[in-house]
Amino acid sequence: MGRNLVYPKHAANTVNREKQRATYDLGVIHSIINSSPVLHVSFSPGPSEPFPATLPMIGQMGSFDYPSAGIDEPLDCYVHGYVSSRIVNLARASKGEGLPVCVAASKIDGLVLSLTPFSHSYNYRSAILHGYATLVTDEQERLWAMELITNSVVPDRWKNTRVPPTPAEMSSTSILKIKVVDGSGKIRDGGPSDERVDKSNEELSNRVWTGVVPVWETLGQPIAAPENKVAEVPEHISSHVSRMNEHNQAYAVDAAVRSKK
Amino acid sequence: MGRNLVYPKHAANTVNREKQRATYDLGVIHSIINSSPVLHVSFSPGPSEPFPATLPMIGQMGSFDYPSAGIDEPLDCYVHGYVSSRIVNLARASKGEGLPVCVAASKIDGLVLSLTPFSHSYNYRSAILHGYATLVTDEQERLWAMELITNSVVPDRWKNTRVPPTPAEMSSTSILKIKVVDGSGKIRDGGPSDERVDKSNEELSNRVWTGVVPVWETLGQPIAAPENKVAEVPEHISSHVSRMNEHNQAYAVDAAVRSKK
Repeated sequence: MGRNLVYPKHAANTVNREKQRATYDLGVIHSIINSSPVLHVSFSPGPSEPFPATLPMIGQMGSFDYPSAGIDEPLDCYVHGYVSSRIVNLARASKGEGLPVCVAASKIDGLVLSLTPFSHSYNYRSAILHGYATLVTDEQERLWAMELITNSVVPDRWKNTRVPPTPAEMSSTSILKIKVVDGSGKIRDGGPSDERVDKSNEELSNRVWTGVVPVWETLGQPIAAPENKVAEVPEHISSHVSRMNEHNQAYAVDAAVRSKK
Repeated sequence: MGRNLVYPKHAANTVNREKQRATYDLGVIHSIINSSPVLHVSFSPGPSEPFPATLPMIGQMGSFDYPSAGIDEPLDCYVHGYVSSRIVNLARASKGEGLPVCVAASKIDGLVLSLTPFSHSYNYRSAILHGYATLVTDEQERLWAMELITNSVVPDRWKNTRVPPTPAEMSSTSILKIKVVDGSGKIRDGGPSDERVDKSNEELSNRVWTGVVPVWETLGQPIAAPENKVAEVPEHISSHVSRMNEHNQAYAVDAAVRSKK
């Protein structure tokens, strides 16, 4: 019943356009990050390189020190990478707080089709985090983060596979922990917004269809590998597939008819 | 019948991990960018800011000078933004070639579930481009790019709305043209890859289901806006919905059973 925790507004994370769609709420931002199968992690590769580098990575929000922390409490962002990849090498070599990174996640919920091209839009949820990435060296924390990340692909998958990892597996994979400095999110939902002058143009509104095409991610029927020997698709997979499909479709359709921000 | 054009390999865009999945082919990379509803565009906000900035943007590959250029020929990346947004201001103020940016697009095609957590993976397509962003000032090129970008949401949408844009619309929207310096893509498909030692462990393979859950983006039934006056969903929208649904599902299912790279 308390107040929601919000990220501080710095120059880097303050939303200046369509402010009514902005959020700094930890719970909302962390949920967008956690429900995104791919995070785009950007960093500067060094002074001799003009372009930022961006990697698609898998990651999750969590707190090793307070594992019971809720999604709306301060959390770190854990991402995994190959032990000798550039981002891991830069994080390992970084002095001070770590490698400065930006984590971005975006999800399209609908195509918003209006009377004029300029009022076309998407319904979407997007979030960014700024923070410092360091290499996790504590073995217990690495194992915990690997379980967290594996279970983000399919809940309970970790305990339904061959664990614990072998020493070779542990040494080939690195975990980066991003200590979050600030973040922001932006959400658009609802139907099209047109200018009054266009809405009152009868020729136009009798000719142009307006509305929303909802968009969501579908998980298909699981396809067994040729080597698979387990006859039935296990419950932890089949229930995830049906739960996600229901949830994703319901969100996109609800977003389409929600009153717009 | 000629050779495919490929991007030059610089330090910034050369893939070092899982090289067999890498591509430098212009046609493949441009197709991934064009089929992605959101591009993540990253840039450095300036010397006083440690973190790269990342924006979700809508964009398309195209050539204004050679509009008939194929997807596998040299193209620019056009993205649109609000006239006073930070990226537009930085591009406007940039000296020389323009603002250095990295454009990233990723698409998940399946959850790849293997015997061990460490062999879990996604089927995916991802691409990045490095290039210099400048503001498009030529009015004809701006109009052409706006049409290109609008039609990427739904083909033929431009001519099915109220065009041409008003002077107010033209002055509130900016188009950035990213001149591409290099790029790369990475594609993973096929079933799970497990280590021999795990595959020959009978207890394990009798217990753990392995295979792929295909993942694709679904477009739902169009939902008319309360103000809509056009009774039937027009053909340019309904055919796009059914074509994309067929195409997306077929790609994800094919990727799941394709021989893995």
